[in-house]
Amino acid sequence: ENRGCLLVKCPDKPGIVSVLSTFLHNHGSNIIESSQYSSDPENGIFFIRIEYHRENLLIEKENMENDFRDIAAAHDMEYDFSYRNDRKRSAIFVSKETHCLMELLWEWQNGDLDTDIVVVISNHEDARPIVESLGIPFHYIPANKDIRKQVEEEQIGLMDKYEVDLLILARYMQILTPDFVRHFESRIINIHHSFLPAFIGAGPYERAYERGVKLIGATSHYVTNNLDEGPIIEQDVERVDHRDDVINLKKIGRQIERRVLAKAVKWHLENRIIVEGNKTIVFH
Amino acid sequence: ENRGCLLVKCPDKPGIVSVLSTFLHNHGSNIIESSQYSSDPENGIFFIRIEYHRENLLIEKENMENDFRDIAAAHDMEYDFSYRNDRKRSAIFVSKETHCLMELLWEWQNGDLDTDIVVVISNHEDARPIVESLGIPFHYIPANKDIRKQVEEEQIGLMDKYEVDLLILARYMQILTPDFVRHFESRIINIHHSFLPAFIGAGPYERAYERGVKLIGATSHYVTNNLDEGPIIEQDVERVDHRDDVINLKKIGRQIERRVLAKAVKWHLENRIIVEGNKTIVFH
Amino acid sequence: ENRGCLLVKCPDKPGIVSVLSTFLHNHGSNIIESSQYSSDPENGIFFIRIEYHRENLLIEKENMENDFRDIAAAHDMEYDFSYRNDRKRSAIFVSKETHCLMELLWEWQNGDLDTDIVVVISNHEDARPIVESLGIPFHYIPANKDIRKQVEEEQIGLMDKYEVDLLILARYMQILTPDFVRHFESRIINIHHSFLPAFIGAGPYERAYERGVKLIGATSHYVTNNLDEGPIIEQDVERVDHRDDVINLKKIGRQIERRVLAKAVKWHLENRIIVEGNKTIVFH
Amino acid sequence: ENRGCLLVKCPDKPGIVSVLSTFLHNHGSNIIESSQYSSDPENGIFFIRIEYHRENLLIEKENMENDFRDIAAAHDMEYDFSYRNDRKRSAIFVSKETHCLMELLWEWQNGDLDTDIVVVISNHEDARPIVESLGIPFHYIPANKDIRKQVEEEQIGLMDKYEVDLLILARYMQILTPDFVRHFESRIINIHHSFLPAFIGAGPYERAYERGVKLIGATSHYVTNNLDEGPIIEQDVERVDHRDDVINLKKIGRQIERRVLAKAVKWHLENRIIVEGNKTIVFH
Repeated sequence: ENRGCLLVKCPDKPGIVSVLSTFLHNHGSNIIESSQYSSDPENGIFFIRIEYHRENLLIEKENMENDFRDIAAAHDMEYDFSYRNDRKRSAIFVSKETHCLMELLWEWQNGDLDTDIVVVISNHEDARPIVESLGIPFHYIPANKDIRKQVEEEQIGLMDKYEVDLLILARYMQILTPDFVRHFESRIINIHHSFLPAFIGAGPYERAYERGVKLIGATSHYVTNNLDEGPIIEQDVERVDHRDDVINLKKIGRQIERRVLAKAVKWHLENRIIVEGNKTIVFH
Repeated sequence: ENRGCLLVKCPDKPGIVSVLSTFLHNHGSNIIESSQYSSDPENGIFFIRIEYHRENLLIEKENMENDFRDIAAAHDMEYDFSYRNDRKRSAIFVSKETHCLMELLWEWQNGDLDTDIVVVISNHEDARPIVESLGIPFHYIPANKDIRKQVEEEQIGLMDKYEVDLLILARYMQILTPDFVRHFESRIINIHHSFLPAFIGAGPYERAYERGVKLIGATSHYVTNNLDEGPIIEQDVERVDHRDDVINLKKIGRQIERRVLAKAVKWHLENRIIVEGNKTIVFH
Repeated sequence: ENRGCLLVKCPDKPGIVSVLSTFLHNHGSNIIESSQYSSDPENGIFFIRIEYHRENLLIEKENMENDFRDIAAAHDMEYDFSYRNDRKRSAIFVSKETHCLMELLWEWQNGDLDTDIVVVISNHEDARPIVESLGIPFHYIPANKDIRKQVEEEQIGLMDKYEVDLLILARYMQILTPDFVRHFESRIINIHHSFLPAFIGAGPYERAYERGVKLIGATSHYVTNNLDEGPIIEQDVERVDHRDDVINLKKIGRQIERRVLAKAVKWHLENRIIVEGNKTIVFH
Repeated sequence: ENRGCLLVKCPDKPGIVSVLSTFLHNHGSNIIESSQYSSDPENGIFFIRIEYHRENLLIEKENMENDFRDIAAAHDMEYDFSYRNDRKRSAIFVSKETHCLMELLWEWQNGDLDTDIVVVISNHEDARPIVESLGIPFHYIPANKDIRKQVEEEQIGLMDKYEVDLLILARYMQILTPDFVRHFESRIINIHHSFLPAFIGAGPYERAYERGVKLIGATSHYVTNNLDEGPIIEQDVERVDHRDDVINLKKIGRQIERRVLAKAVKWHLENRIIVEGNKTIVFH
């Protein structure tokens, strides 16, 4: 594959697109897709995602990256080059409920998730058969708040061993410590089973039922050290009514959770997301 | 019109539907629409809405209501008879933003809101021309928190004068006192410009923008003395993204607000809503 | 389980609900859920679905059904009694694409489809491993239009052997003959990969792409001998845009297809559907 | 206002974005928004919409357009420059049903439609009061198929007199002749009251009812000489069920029609639409 993706963030000023597109053209690259956003055309911040094609990209990429350094410095750019060929390596954490894991595995088998799923870690044994049947290593690490530190050391050890780029919390029902989160900043995606910021924390379906809402939702977000307060990637909702008890809300919710998480993961893997402060810019 | 509507709430036990349907049949009534809900088939609470047709209903209704008393007593029923012919009388409170008012007036002109809009009250003059052009009395009552008591006295006076059954807050941006709310319990419908319980209180679009949500919403609810905590009648959402600034969120939100409020008002006018605790049962 | 479900269709006239609810009450049954619809309150057709609970239902059901015969005759009723305890037996036909099959199996494993899946039949081998891993018999019957008659004989043989009540076409890409369809009238549910009646027949995603539609959909319906013209049970859509090529439309479409088919099957299994002419009444 | 918009269509090849962005930069313009699409990165057609800001644009625009000619020729570009300051002039045709007209007028009054509505023409008098109350000329031209030629001459005369750029058919229930359509190619937007290509032609709600669909829709499209076959701009749907008779479908449909038409008109006015063959590319 000769496809690359360039993400850039810099102070907005005239000529940025010209500089970038001319750079790519001079390096024999054809822009396939390009999306941009400026927080404010006057003195705002400029964000762009460019997907391009270049012959012999894997041989030339080092040169390109080197040549780009001066441009980046001149325009005060933060940037990231990524290559379709370098598939990201994902780990999935899951607890007893496997619907989100199943959806990810299903999309992955269909070739719709461009990643290597290198390990699944769980504090329950439920997911082992399906995971191992697909040839993916499964690690059972029992967890509770009293042994959190030791559990996380073991988990971090596995993350390192498997060289994990992205950690997906597919309904993993344990809280992560600040140390753990810092280790994987902007690289942990969680699915929360409510339409955030409604129902932060535990028992969102129970609380949605108590409140009598007419729609329930799910939210995927990057994990930060403020519980359920990280940058939101995707949200969706479904209609419910007075006849839906908590069990039903959970059933309906599972459908929302799995599609919302799958979309967020997919966009992350395609380098479509830039985190800016506590928000995300998602280039569709 | 010979159409009536009977709402009943009582302890659930076998035979309730039989009792009610036999009563109606014995009084020459044909059931046109019937919806029911039980909070729990064993020892729960039973709710039913029956719409029926009877020849000469307006002459016979007093007899029917009298005859029903024994049944209601025997089964511990709370109930309400209403008649299509007795149109509810509605008042609308509005401030500067008129989109919700406009939607209600538009539905009303189309014959889709089965009510008499008897008065519009506002703390701004903006809505006067459109309201008066439709022959509806318009009262301008300036308001702020220092003169709240005197303002509400004037408002209550007008409510009494116009014999108002339903008060619709169509983006009325003043807080009502507990006294006022008590006066119109379960008869005030508000539209809140967020997906409750997210963004309770002031500035919901600004806060939605800050939080970076991917959907924004609106909620119509009965007003209680807990701000934005009353029983929810209807909610809806629209998708937004990082490019939508606060002005845009408000534009998109206006479309949600007007359709959500119009639905809630319509269902109230058709006696489709039963308030139970802090929730609503809405029989569609 | 002591739960039963009664579906009734008859000419609408006053007193029907009274007759039915009194019958059930006299037979010791408590109505748990009831939904009704009249095509026209004057001289229309009346439809009702009643779910009820009765102690010792399985012992008493024969008596109840006997006693009901006179009532049915007196009011010209078509009716059907079904019992939660008698789980329907389902067969699934599938071709190469397994996403709809997978969704049904997933719902079934979660206990959300109240049926026994007794056999899966396919003209391809792709689905065999997953089906057999769940302990469900899998039969490979190669098919093409030249051997249709003999294929269908074999299929009907299996349907009879496995005593199939419901046949689900989960993207089975062969046309069924009128003889076969007649054999299973109102008991075959198909998923068509378009928003019917748009794009009847083959290649709906290709044609949606050609036409430049902004939403694509899927439709589940009972199979009749008019291709894609049977009574519609459920439909849904997703937004697409000019960037979505046919491959993408198919990916997005798969998500719609699987949820639309799963809903239709679930409602059928819960006896929520009455077919009337070429339409369905679905009691949610 | 110093805002301009450039739409370009040309054969895709490396360097196009570089050429365009460098041209704009050299002419003192800052790109505010840019969206692009390629039908195929290899030998496809490339489309781009660039919104830019330039000081003294109205003075400089002639120079810019002149300088662009060589670039366009060199790269075989079709292109269009437009300027925020040159508001498009719109005419609206309407018949008896005014809901789409009302929505457009409402958006326009709110400042959300960037156009001058210069004339409303109708074959009924219903809309006259509201139109004239807003100071917009209203012309009543009775129409039927026998006098079509003479009616269209009169309409074209008014279009010319009012120098109309965009003609909006807001539920105008007369067929236009090929001559008329040719006169305004790609400048007539219609709202069709179905989810095209389902229910082309007359009576779509009646036919949706007959078919028993579970969603109804509306479609806005450019008018061509193939009835209801022109390039689709926007579509949307709402859920309906067996209880919705034709009158109800029409009520629900009106809500869809008005929002779908308003969106399409808005996007056209913002130069967000490129027509390509029988499809549209809409840059959001």
